[in-house]
Amino acid sequence: SRSIRLAVIPGDGIGPEVVAEGLKVLAAVLPQDVKLETNEYDLGARRWHATGETLPDEELKSLKQHDAILLGAIGDPTVPSGVLERGLLLELRFAFDHYVNLRPGKLHPSTVGPLAGSPAIDFVVVREGTEGPYTGNGGSLRTGTPAEVATEVSVNTAYGVERVIRYAFERALARPRRNLTLVHKTNVLVHAGNLWQSTFDAVAAEYPDVTTDYLHVDAATIFFVTRPERFDVIVTDNLFGDILTDLAAAVTGGIGLAASGNINPTGAYPSMFEPVHGSAPDIAGTGKADPTATVLSVALLLRHLGYEQEAGRIEAAVAADLAERDPAAPRSTEQIGDALAARLAG
Amino acid sequence: SRSIRLAVIPGDGIGPEVVAEGLKVLAAVLPQDVKLETNEYDLGARRWHATGETLPDEELKSLKQHDAILLGAIGDPTVPSGVLERGLLLELRFAFDHYVNLRPGKLHPSTVGPLAGSPAIDFVVVREGTEGPYTGNGGSLRTGTPAEVATEVSVNTAYGVERVIRYAFERALARPRRNLTLVHKTNVLVHAGNLWQSTFDAVAAEYPDVTTDYLHVDAATIFFVTRPERFDVIVTDNLFGDILTDLAAAVTGGIGLAASGNINPTGAYPSMFEPVHGSAPDIAGTGKADPTATVLSVALLLRHLGYEQEAGRIEAAVAADLAERDPAAPRSTEQIGDALAARLAG
Ligand SMILES: CC(C)[C@H](C(=O)O)[C@@H](O)C(=O)O
Ligand SMILES: CC(C)[C@H](C(=O)O)[C@@H](O)C(=O)O
Repeated sequence: SRSIRLAVIPGDGIGPEVVAEGLKVLAAVLPQDVKLETNEYDLGARRWHATGETLPDEELKSLKQHDAILLGAIGDPTVPSGVLERGLLLELRFAFDHYVNLRPGKLHPSTVGPLAGSPAIDFVVVREGTEGPYTGNGGSLRTGTPAEVATEVSVNTAYGVERVIRYAFERALARPRRNLTLVHKTNVLVHAGNLWQSTFDAVAAEYPDVTTDYLHVDAATIFFVTRPERFDVIVTDNLFGDILTDLAAAVTGGIGLAASGNINPTGAYPSMFEPVHGSAPDIAGTGKADPTATVLSVALLLRHLGYEQEAGRIEAAVAADLAERDPAAPRSTEQIGDALAARLAG
Repeated sequence: SRSIRLAVIPGDGIGPEVVAEGLKVLAAVLPQDVKLETNEYDLGARRWHATGETLPDEELKSLKQHDAILLGAIGDPTVPSGVLERGLLLELRFAFDHYVNLRPGKLHPSTVGPLAGSPAIDFVVVREGTEGPYTGNGGSLRTGTPAEVATEVSVNTAYGVERVIRYAFERALARPRRNLTLVHKTNVLVHAGNLWQSTFDAVAAEYPDVTTDYLHVDAATIFFVTRPERFDVIVTDNLFGDILTDLAAAVTGGIGLAASGNINPTGAYPSMFEPVHGSAPDIAGTGKADPTATVLSVALLLRHLGYEQEAGRIEAAVAADLAERDPAAPRSTEQIGDALAARLAG
C-alpha cells in the first residue's frame, strides 16, 4: 500500500496557522489507502531563542528521511534579520540541493475584485535555487569604518545554470503554449549573463518545439504589470526570481494565493513546499491569514509525489472557492481551510 | 546674462525623436535672456558601426565642458548586448560620478485610462548610480566549458553608500511627507545589507524630522503594485533601483512618462538627464514614441541648473496635457511635443 512520510515545519508568525489548514486539506483529499505519516519539527524563532540553534545536524538528517517537507514561514522580528532566513530556510534549500524553485502564477478569469475581467493568466516561474547572489559569498573590509568596502558575489556555474534551464525547457514542452522566456540582465551583468544566455541557446537547440525569448529583468517587471498573460514559462536566477515571483503574486490575485516548491528533481533529497508569503508577524494570531497559498503548495507537493489527480482536485477546489469569494464577507484562516476540505470530502 | 551649455546625445532608436521634442519644449520655456548653446554628439550604434568607438576620450573631455547633458536612449539590436550600454551609458555615469540616479514617480489623480481614480501617487526613487553590481567586477573561468564558473561582484563602499543616503535624506526633508524608505535585501545579502542598513541608521540620527522605514526588495515590489501611494522618497542600490524604477514607471502611467536624472550633486561634473525608457527599436521611426518622459527629464535638468520656475511650468504643462489626453485619439511624437511647446509659449 502507498504511503507518504511528510516532514512539517510550521515555523514562525502565520506559518503554523496556514500549515494547519494545509494539512487539513491534505487529509481530506488523500485516498483511504494512502498512509500519511507526518512529523513536526520545531524550527524557527522559538527554537532559536531557546537553544540558539537554527538547523541542527540531527534535524537535517531526520528531515532527509522524508518524502517531502511542508513549510509554513520563517522569520520573526525578535530575531536579527537574516539569521533564520539564512540559517534555516536557505540552509534547507542548499542542503537538499533544491535547484528548482517553482512558482506558478495563475489568475482564473472568474476571480472577483479589482482584477476581474482581465485576461486569464497562467505562467510558471522556474527560479534557480542554489546559486547566484544567494551563496553567501562576499564579505566586508574595515567594517564599521568610513573606509568600509562590502561585497556580494553572485556565483553561477555551467552545472547549476544548465540543469535549471533544462528543467524549464521540459516544463515548457509539457504545456500547451510551449514558450520559455529567459529573464536576466545580460547587458550589465555580462559574465553571468553570457553564461545564462549561451547555456539557454545551447539547450534551446535541443527543444525545437519550444519557442523562446529573452527579457532584461527591468523590462520583465513592466510586462508582469502590463501584460502578464504574455508569459508561459520563465526561467531566471535566484535573486531576479525572488523579486519577480513576489511581483507575479501581486498581479495574480495577491500573495495570499502564491504557492511554491523547492524542488530537487533527481529525488536524491526531499523537496520542500511553502507559500511564497512570509511569516507576516503583523497578522499572526488574528485569523486573517489566507491559507490558500499553503493549500496550493500542498497540491504542488502531491503532484511532485505522483498524486496528479489529487493535486488537480485541490486546484479545482481552490478555483471554485475563489470564484465564490465575497470581498464583503472575509473568512478566517480556519473557515477557508474548512470550506476547501469540505469541497474535497464531498 | 545667463547661459546654458547643453550637450545633446540623441542616441539610438527613438532617442533622436524624443530628444527633438525635448529641445523644442526647452526652447519654448526658456526666458529670452538665457543664452542656450547646444552641442550634439554622435554617439551610439551608428558611431560604433562606423568607427568601433563607444565613448572616445576626446568626446568625454568635450562633454565635460557643459552644464548638463540631455540623452535620448542607448542600445540597438545590431550591436552586441551590453557594448553600448556599458561602453557609453554606464561609462558616462561612472566617468561623471553620477552617484544619484533620480527617478520621480507621479500619478496625477486626473489621469485617464485604467489607472484613473487611483489615489495620487508622488514618490521619488533615489537610486545609487556608481556602485553595486554595476561596477563590472567579476569574471568567468573555463568559459564556454561545462566547468564554467561566472561571477558578478556587487561592490559597496561606506563612501558611496553614505553620500547617496545623505542626499536621499535631504530630498525627504524638503518634501511635505518627510518619509524615507530604504529598500534592500538585508536578510540574504548580509555584507552589503549591513553596510546599507547601518549607514542608513547612522544618517537617520541626524534627521530626526524624517520618518524612516525599511523594505526587502521583494516586499517593495508588492507595495509598488498594491499601495504605491505609501511611498515618499525611496533610497536603494543600483540594481534594485533599476528594477524598481521600471516597475514604478509601469504603475504611474507607463514608461512613456518616466523621467530620470543622473546627478553629480557636487557640480564637479555635468549631470545627465534621460527618459527611463530604452531605445525601443521596434517603434523607432513610427512616430509612436511618447516624448513626455524626455520633456519631464528636461524639467529635471532645468531644476538642477536652478531654473525652478521653468521646471515647474513644464511639469504643469505636462499635467494639463495628460488630463486632456484622449486614449481614442493617440497623437504622434511631434504632435505631443508641439502641444506642450504651444502651452508654454502661451
Ligand atoms: C525569506 C527569504 C530568504 C526568501 C528568499 O529570498 O528566497 C523569500 O523571500 C522567498 O522568496 O522564499
Ligand atoms: C540600459 C541599462 C544599462 C540601464 C541600466 O540598467 O541602468 C537602463 O535599464 C536604465 O535603467 O537606465
